[in-house]
Amino acid sequence: MEIKVLKDILSANDRIAHENQKLLDSKGVLAINVMASPGAGKTSVILQTIAGLKDIIRIGVIEGDVSSSIDTERIAKENVPVLQINTGGECHLDANMVKRALRDMPLDDIDILFIENIGNLICTAEFKIGTHKNLVIASVPEGDDKPLKYPLMFTVADIILVNKIDLLPYSKFDIKAYERSVKGLNENVEVIPVSCATGKGIQRWLKWVTDSKDNIDTEGSAK
Amino acid sequence: MEIKVLKDILSANDRIAHENQKLLDSKGVLAINVMASPGAGKTSVILQTIAGLKDIIRIGVIEGDVSSSIDTERIAKENVPVLQINTGGECHLDANMVKRALRDMPLDDIDILFIENIGNLICTAEFKIGTHKNLVIASVPEGDDKPLKYPLMFTVADIILVNKIDLLPYSKFDIKAYERSVKGLNENVEVIPVSCATGKGIQRWLKWVTDSKDNIDTEGSAK
Repeated sequence: MEIKVLKDILSANDRIAHENQKLLDSKGVLAINVMASPGAGKTSVILQTIAGLKDIIRIGVIEGDVSSSIDTERIAKENVPVLQINTGGECHLDANMVKRALRDMPLDDIDILFIENIGNLICTAEFKIGTHKNLVIASVPEGDDKPLKYPLMFTVADIILVNKIDLLPYSKFDIKAYERSVKGLNENVEVIPVSCATGKGIQRWLKWVTDSKDNIDTEGSAK
Repeated sequence: MEIKVLKDILSANDRIAHENQKLLDSKGVLAINVMASPGAGKTSVILQTIAGLKDIIRIGVIEGDVSSSIDTERIAKENVPVLQINTGGECHLDANMVKRALRDMPLDDIDILFIENIGNLICTAEFKIGTHKNLVIASVPEGDDKPLKYPLMFTVADIILVNKIDLLPYSKFDIKAYERSVKGLNENVEVIPVSCATGKGIQRWLKWVTDSKDNIDTEGSAK
């Protein structure tokens, strides 16, 4: 009974996610679902991306939070379109929340939409929201065993940034072991070590973003 | 309809949590629910506690994980009773999972039971499991804004450890601002800065543990 209800919710969610994606396709907008544990650096990565690409690509942001608008205020300072979704306790964004936010996002005026999901390495991976790509941000202080402990998130990822590599000298994080764990779950995923604090690795990430945007443009719809 | 189902699940859960707590009371066992983001240091805190108290207090551990038994293997090396709950994807422990694990835990042979919950700063706070105390472990690299973003967790906490203070020189974490945020949500909670890597602050945490155990003994049941 309980399982039946959950299944119904998920399939209704998937239908709305598909509609969201069709709307984004019709506007030529590449949408990226940004997922991570609390404090891994979701907002910092978005800010670095805006700083690196704002002269060539128009970026919009939807900020998902359980509570507060701290991150939205940080993004708003960059003068890009930004909307806040407060889930009021819910542990993930769902397609309907994003559908409502998309109504207020100026989709004709942006090329890439970042949707920052709730800080949660489990539930967010279970709900499609209509994005084309799943970005997972890991961080060095979290430890290198997270792919083994939270496998679904790393299975659904299209790209993984390992943030805070400036803290590698003070951590036991083994980046080779980490990459092996990830590839065991998802052999095609790209792993890019970065530091939002020092900027290291960010150029490689920006290239991934612009390449992904080129692919969506060329094909007329998202891969 | 959806809300009704959730409410039914929660009240059934609370009934079982109450039974779990009564069982623990009857055995004179203090149970502590260990909650945190992924990688904040739940297992490391438990290992430090075992190391510091094993000669005076008998400790048992239940390890909750979505997947894998990495943490259970780390605890098992310390020769304390340890059981694994794998939730198979679920984002939190519930009272029924703990009830089943308690059947296999030698409650007559332990004084304190640590139950390491799933790495999740949202959902775990919503489900009682029958413990007497809620320990929340924060960590410096996560940033000092987490109480504002995930308020429920910090509202239900009885004690908060701020782990990884050895990384303070490399972070923007403001411990005074953090404490102010926490006290705004939960004025009676104690906040102890610690480092499992260097041992700093651990003695103060161990005193909190032994004081809590003394209180439960004196009163014959948990506070």
